Amino acid sequence: MHTIAITMGCPVGIGPEIVVRLCARHRLPPEPRPLIVGDVGVLRRTAALLGEDIPFVPWKVGETLHEGEVAVHEVTRLGAEELSWGKPDGITGAASARYLQAALQLIAAGQADAVATCPINKHSWHQAGYNYPGHTEMLAALTGSERYAMMLAGERLRVVLATIHLPLRQVASTLAKDAIASLLTLIDFSLRRDFAIANPRIGVAGLNPHAGENGLFGDEEGRLILPAVAEAQKGGLLVEGPLPPDTIFHHAAGGRFDAVLAMYHDQGLIPFKLLHFADGVNVTLGLPIVRTSVDHGTAYDIAGQGLASADSLLAAVRLAATICANRRAIRGELP
Amino acid sequence: MHTIAITMGCPVGIGPEIVVRLCARHRLPPEPRPLIVGDVGVLRRTAALLGEDIPFVPWKVGETLHEGEVAVHEVTRLGAEELSWGKPDGITGAASARYLQAALQLIAAGQADAVATCPINKHSWHQAGYNYPGHTEMLAALTGSERYAMMLAGERLRVVLATIHLPLRQVASTLAKDAIASLLTLIDFSLRRDFAIANPRIGVAGLNPHAGENGLFGDEEGRLILPAVAEAQKGGLLVEGPLPPDTIFHHAAGGRFDAVLAMYHDQGLIPFKLLHFADGVNVTLGLPIVRTSVDHGTAYDIAGQGLASADSLLAAVRLAATICANRRAIRGELP
Repeated sequence: MHTIAITMGCPVGIGPEIVVRLCARHRLPPEPRPLIVGDVGVLRRTAALLGEDIPFVPWKVGETLHEGEVAVHEVTRLGAEELSWGKPDGITGAASARYLQAALQLIAAGQADAVATCPINKHSWHQAGYNYPGHTEMLAALTGSERYAMMLAGERLRVVLATIHLPLRQVASTLAKDAIASLLTLIDFSLRRDFAIANPRIGVAGLNPHAGENGLFGDEEGRLILPAVAEAQKGGLLVEGPLPPDTIFHHAAGGRFDAVLAMYHDQGLIPFKLLHFADGVNVTLGLPIVRTSVDHGTAYDIAGQGLASADSLLAAVRLAATICANRRAIRGELP
Repeated sequence: MHTIAITMGCPVGIGPEIVVRLCARHRLPPEPRPLIVGDVGVLRRTAALLGEDIPFVPWKVGETLHEGEVAVHEVTRLGAEELSWGKPDGITGAASARYLQAALQLIAAGQADAVATCPINKHSWHQAGYNYPGHTEMLAALTGSERYAMMLAGERLRVVLATIHLPLRQVASTLAKDAIASLLTLIDFSLRRDFAIANPRIGVAGLNPHAGENGLFGDEEGRLILPAVAEAQKGGLLVEGPLPPDTIFHHAAGGRFDAVLAMYHDQGLIPFKLLHFADGVNVTLGLPIVRTSVDHGTAYDIAGQGLASADSLLAAVRLAATICANRRAIRGELP
């Protein structure tokens, strides 16, 4: 039985709501067991608002987790009545950052096997003095990880991004051969260790229309991507590319690749969200711990209205447990 | 009964093959009636190769089209034995350009209602002295059309591209407010006239991740796209945007928009090909004549092997007939 620490995320976003929904579906979870990291008062208020009766109970490190109860590692007592849905501030920012720190401590103490995170707000983190762009970077810093990447994982498609939150006009000049080659090694390693795929096949998207059509529409394929792919192939990896961006995801969804390396945010996110709008999971590759996340934001516009879906969180919790099981079976070191 | 001129495209690509496959499925077409524009010898050789028995008969302008026969307007007699699949040259280039010219003449003479085109090879067109990037630009020139655009149309998604065959690094600096505003008017007009949609709703994608997130990841949304959308809205159009590129196609496929204006090739083509890999149609908006096309290329790597699917051609022929019917019912002028 795996125990997955679930951080509540921003207390005034949809995090508390999707935790409640998850627990309602998961009342007597066969596997994995949830261990919520957050605020009991906020969760109880949210459950009441949604008309759900969830047995949230405060829990402390070292206590037994009981069947029929949902244990909440009580990191904050924010005073639920004083919070307003959709209005984050420095206090909510500090709270959600502390949930992540606490989850890491639970893993270090052997009380949880993995962490699945609910969305936070970057701006309120900054207000609280946590100067990270998001969970991923904070986790990388706290675990001393230098090589890590974001994978979006679903039943039909797994996508890793070579660049993320950049203006489109900066993408071409940000790509670098060595970074792509390093990512390919990390993806191959993670598909073996975390997804138990013995001989992973990775497709690499081109940057330009038709993957440049032999230099007619851009030279980054020949100059950066092809050399990185060749280097990975020389290292024995099953990598193919650069392939035309407008068909590679069709082929990947059809089973030809176990993952696609996309060159920029929307190249990877457009097909991923089309196939996995509600049930996609964000997995951080390259960390010593197992970390998954919902693939959506705080959704302040609908927070507290009972509209949010817990599908992505449920998928994130399940995938975290699967990765834990795979890592126990398969050991290895990133080359 | 509509008659659709179907150009055979490059004689050594998959054009002849998909025409044969179409006619095999379409032997006694209830509607529309195909009028092939190409080369009888090439088509007969192709049919024999595929084991199909199609009654291709040479046809001349003014002759009656008989049920049970497939009329071929014989523009070339290339000597089918001398052609090699996948080996285009100036002769095949001239042939495929002449098929398009002939189809236009058939429409002008009232012998055909529309044209559906099979793929050509740009390089062999250039060898033959036809200096157009493709069918679309040649048709625009021959019909004197200055405002035209490429739409990809399928059951679930319609996408129009603001920029097409450009290196990704040139996209941001090529976009212009006036061009986007003009395209929105053309899309609205075409959805009404060609697709018989009374109050078309158009979604406009942003250029950058999260549509720029208020300028954090790029300023083109605020500087170019939003003003163009505002201008279109002022003109009474139902236009929404710029919206985050990674979710707009999900919403469009779910019915929220009748068409999406994408800012660059892969932004539109990635989701389109994911939903319509085999059955997508390329429609040229803004021409005085009705023109559809397959949405794939000559596929020289599989030409002559019986592997090509006629789904896109069949969809293109059917959509051409639908647009003809809609244009008869709905008249109008592009503002």
